[in-house]
Order: sequence, then structure tokens, then C-alpha cells
Amino acid sequence: MNEEYVCGLDVGGTKMAALVADVTGPLARVSAPTVKTGTVRALAGQALDLLDAACRQAGVPGAAVQKLGVATCGPFVPLDGMLGIAPPNVCGARSKAADLPNDWDVIPLEQVLRERFQTVAVRNDCAAALLAERQFGAARNEPNCVYVTWSTGIGFGLCVDGHILQGKRGNAGHAGHMLMDPLSDAECGCGNLGDIEAIAAGRNLANRLGCDTADLFNRARAGEAAAVEIANDAARWLGRALYNVVAVLDTRLFLFGGGVWNHHGDWLAPLLRREIGRYFPALTDGVEITSATLGARVTDVGALALVLPPAWLPLWNESQPWNRLSEA
Amino acid sequence: MNEEYVCGLDVGGTKMAALVADVTGPLARVSAPTVKTGTVRALAGQALDLLDAACRQAGVPGAAVQKLGVATCGPFVPLDGMLGIAPPNVCGARSKAADLPNDWDVIPLEQVLRERFQTVAVRNDCAAALLAERQFGAARNEPNCVYVTWSTGIGFGLCVDGHILQGKRGNAGHAGHMLMDPLSDAECGCGNLGDIEAIAAGRNLANRLGCDTADLFNRARAGEAAAVEIANDAARWLGRALYNVVAVLDTRLFLFGGGVWNHHGDWLAPLLRREIGRYFPALTDGVEITSATLGARVTDVGALALVLPPAWLPLWNESQPWNRLSEA
Repeated sequence: MNEEYVCGLDVGGTKMAALVADVTGPLARVSAPTVKTGTVRALAGQALDLLDAACRQAGVPGAAVQKLGVATCGPFVPLDGMLGIAPPNVCGARSKAADLPNDWDVIPLEQVLRERFQTVAVRNDCAAALLAERQFGAARNEPNCVYVTWSTGIGFGLCVDGHILQGKRGNAGHAGHMLMDPLSDAECGCGNLGDIEAIAAGRNLANRLGCDTADLFNRARAGEAAAVEIANDAARWLGRALYNVVAVLDTRLFLFGGGVWNHHGDWLAPLLRREIGRYFPALTDGVEITSATLGARVTDVGALALVLPPAWLPLWNESQPWNRLSEA
Repeated sequence: MNEEYVCGLDVGGTKMAALVADVTGPLARVSAPTVKTGTVRALAGQALDLLDAACRQAGVPGAAVQKLGVATCGPFVPLDGMLGIAPPNVCGARSKAADLPNDWDVIPLEQVLRERFQTVAVRNDCAAALLAERQFGAARNEPNCVYVTWSTGIGFGLCVDGHILQGKRGNAGHAGHMLMDPLSDAECGCGNLGDIEAIAAGRNLANRLGCDTADLFNRARAGEAAAVEIANDAARWLGRALYNVVAVLDTRLFLFGGGVWNHHGDWLAPLLRREIGRYFPALTDGVEITSATLGARVTDVGALALVLPPAWLPLWNESQPWNRLSEA
């Protein structure tokens, strides 16, 4: 198999990104809003188009790339022995909101991509992000670590004893759907009331004040009482959820990314640390919360990391070529 | 190293058991109430005495046994590079109740045992129980499984992708200390209010009706309204906690043991299943709840399993020699 080039694909509920890389690092990155209309194969078809576009932009002949790493939103649902995806914010048949212009139930993502690529490695996006941090970032020497994206939604990638967890269908790390507040009427896309995503994800917080997420946190940082209360409340609940993860997995290090964190982590981190520190010292002593090293491109690099030839790792660690991606 | 014999030790907050085994299976089992007075080495000293007694009872010369597997209550606290234990229901300095006749902070369990045995493998008791089920029981072919003891306390052993989780200090599986009900005033030994152990463990349930655990469940099964409500409530909360474990780990199979389950699992299992089934089908479809195959001796066998020579496994699987232990 040709290992001159590999491709990566990052499938989110809002945006999709395609990358092609060689031994020197990523060569091109192309992104577009995620397609949500057409047949159930439309989303995977868009992925193939973007991958082609990335190859063209990099001047790489498509046939020269046969390995694809995929970091995708979930959950996964088994389909013909492969991994389909059924994200409630993409699939009309899975959405409670009934505002999606399709009737998709399970998207045959792996199936369609395997028609084009010889090797397709599919992982939950946060598990892929954590792999990037394990190979290139702050988690390189930490076998018990968790990646958290605090963004429109809340997702987790989990590593215990050096092993990134997959679970029975690759859905380990859906800890954003842990039930936290039995009295909450905040509804999650998955149908749960009061799970941590419903309570503390960016979109849901902002809805409570009738503004957008950026506005909510700017108002909170400016000291506006209603916004401060919502932001503090979200941090307390997420801190409790992180403690629960520590109680289950005996985690030492949390690495954060996602829009809410990337803009307001400096202000939110102390609130999270204080909440975790309130519980069971034998478990929580020494737990750290910090930012993912790879920043906004951590999931893109994670997708590539799924299929990176091992010989490339030391070179990438030295040159840190993902920094190019911020300009791409 | 001599592999004719191995020893096992099961350290609980109430009772301690010591075993010696050879290729044919367990030869003797000796147990006693866990010592909670004397110096901080007293508990480990009692363990050595019980292990000696088990060897004597089996007619095995003590010097012939140099491998010891230890299944113990936790949490673990690092001590001189080894695993000490600091269970809140044993260590006076860690107890909120202040009713323990000692001022122990961390018990040097591994340290003292290593003065006697060449090989000492120490694991959380529920992780050891799960190992027994993985080697000999219902989880032999299930890489994504969890052992739950529902007893005086509530503990978990976790297996994901075929790997039994340890965590940064061996404390993975303390999911009994997940925070569930923010309004609960039920206090756990660890200091938490409203964690699942505080809400649903046998002792705490019975306290609410001023009776013992056996009495509570007998009255519930007889239809007494107050007891039914408490038992239903406990099952609902524990079902929510199991769902949370599924959301984190994508577990397929739960294996239950412990006093509450062993006496009332037939009545409680449908309540747990119904609660889990209320949430996120993509994660919960196909999740099963059943009894641990090895029954009341699962943790004893788990302790032995930590140091069993691999050549013994097929023989034990064939002869199921742990069944002898019910008479020992």
C-alpha cells in the first residue's frame, strides 16, 4: 500500500473538513457546511467530494491516497457489519426537534467511504482528538486522560491505562449524555432531560438568555448578573460531571477544547477545578484541567492520526506541522 | 518460582477471607471479621494470620506459597510506591461517622504482604470479581462488561474492549461515588451527599425505614407501601447510574452480585432494565443485566485469578472447583 499520502475527514454536525497529508504534514484542508438534504448517502458523498477537492488543492493524484482516517460525530449504529452514524442533530428520523430537512435514520458513512478507500479507520471525534493529544500533545506521557469538547455540544474522548476506549459499538465517551439533574427540563437532542449536554452545552445555555453563546459569556465576564448565574451554574454542573468521570475512570488529566472553552477557558477553568475539588479527595487529588495542545485543529489531526504511518510520528512531533492548518 | 500453590485474599470492610489453591482448585478458605483496632499494620497482620491458617488447614507448608492475589475494598492511596488502602468504613481518620476504634489514615496493605510473599498482585475487589467472571463466568466472551456489587455498599469493576480498567491509582470503578441526586441528604462514607451508594446501598435504604436490609426487601416484596416505594426508588436511581455507565463506557453486559442482589435480584432486575431502557436507544439497545456466574464466591475466585498460572485456567474452567467453596 502506498504510504506517501493519507487523508483525514472530520465530520461534525455543523461543518465537515477534509485533509490530505504527507510525511511533512498536512498539505491541504477543505471544509464546508455539513450536507443535510438528499438521499441517506448524500453526507458521505459530500465527504468524498471534499476529499477530492483537498487532493486537487494539494496537487496529489486521488488514486495515490488509499488510507482515510475519519473523526465523526456519533453515535455509531451498526449497519451491514460496518459503522453507520445516527447523530440526532443531523438525522431527521432521530431528531426530536423535527426541524431537519431529511428523513435519514442511519447514515452509511463507513460503507460509502470504503467504496473509495482501501483502508478506512472510523472513530468518534473526541476519541480521535484524544489520540492526537496522546501522540503529539499534552497527553503524551499521561495514560489516564480525557479530552472534553465544550462547544455547541459536549463530548468526551477517554483514555485509561494508555488505552483509548471504544466500547461495544465505538460509542464509549458519550458521557455528555450522563444524566445529572433529575429536575431539569433542559432537553438534549438525544431525548434526555437534564443530561450534562442539555444543561451546559453552549447552545442550551445561550437559549436561556435568548442570546448567542458568545454574547452570553461576554455578558457573564462583564459581570451581568443573569449571565453570571447561568455561566456559573453551567460550570458547576460540568464540574460535577467531570468528578463523575473521575469516580468511574480514576482520570488524572482533562484536556479541553471546543468553542466555549477556546474563548472562555481561562475564566471557566477555576470554576471547574473548584467544583471537582469539593468531592472525595482520594479520587480527586492531583486531577488537572488544561487546554488541548493542538487547539482548534485537534480533531483534524486526530482524523489523520488514525492512519498515520508510525515512521511519521517523530517527524511530526519535531516539526509540529499542524500549525500550518490555522492558515489553511 | 514455585507454582504448585497460590494464595488469595479478599479484604472487605466487614469480613476478610484467605484462600489457598492448587491446580485442582481451592483447598481451604478461612474467614474472620475485619480487624479495626491496633496499629495501622494490624489489618494486614490479620491477613497474614488468616493466610497461614488457610495453609495449615490445607496441609500446605507456608514456605511453598509465594504468590498472593489480593482483592480489596478501596480506595487505594499511594504509599512508598505501593498501594495502601483508605476505606472510609475501616479507617478512623477517613470516616465521617467517627465511630471507628482507630485513627488509621492509610493502611500499608501491599507493604506488609510483600514482607511475606514474593509476588503480590493487588486489585480493587470488584475489578478482581470481574476478572473471575472474564476467566470463568458469564463475561468470558464479552469484552464490554461491568461487574456490580449491590450490597452494604455499591461497587463496580469495569472492562472495556477486553481490558479491565485500573486508572491512575487503581481506583477506576469507584462509580458507586457518582453524584446522582443533587437534592439528596443521604450521606456516603466518602462524604458525598446523594451519590449512588448513599442513595441505593443496602444499609442506607434500610436506615430510611429503621429496619435491616433483609427486612426492608421482604416487606417490599410483600407489598408494604412504604417499603415498596423505597425499593422502587433505589432501583430507579441505580438504573439511572447504570445508564450513566453505559453513556461513558458503551457497556453491553452488567453482571451483578452482592447481598441485596443475591437475595432479591429476581425482583429488582426488571426495575433496573426498565429504567435503562428509558434512555438513548443507540447506546442502550442490547444492554443486558444478569447475575454473576460465580455467585457469592466471585471475589474470592477473583483474588486467586490475579495470580493463577495460565496453565490452570482450562482445568478450572472444566472442573469449576469454586463450587467447593460454598461448603468451605
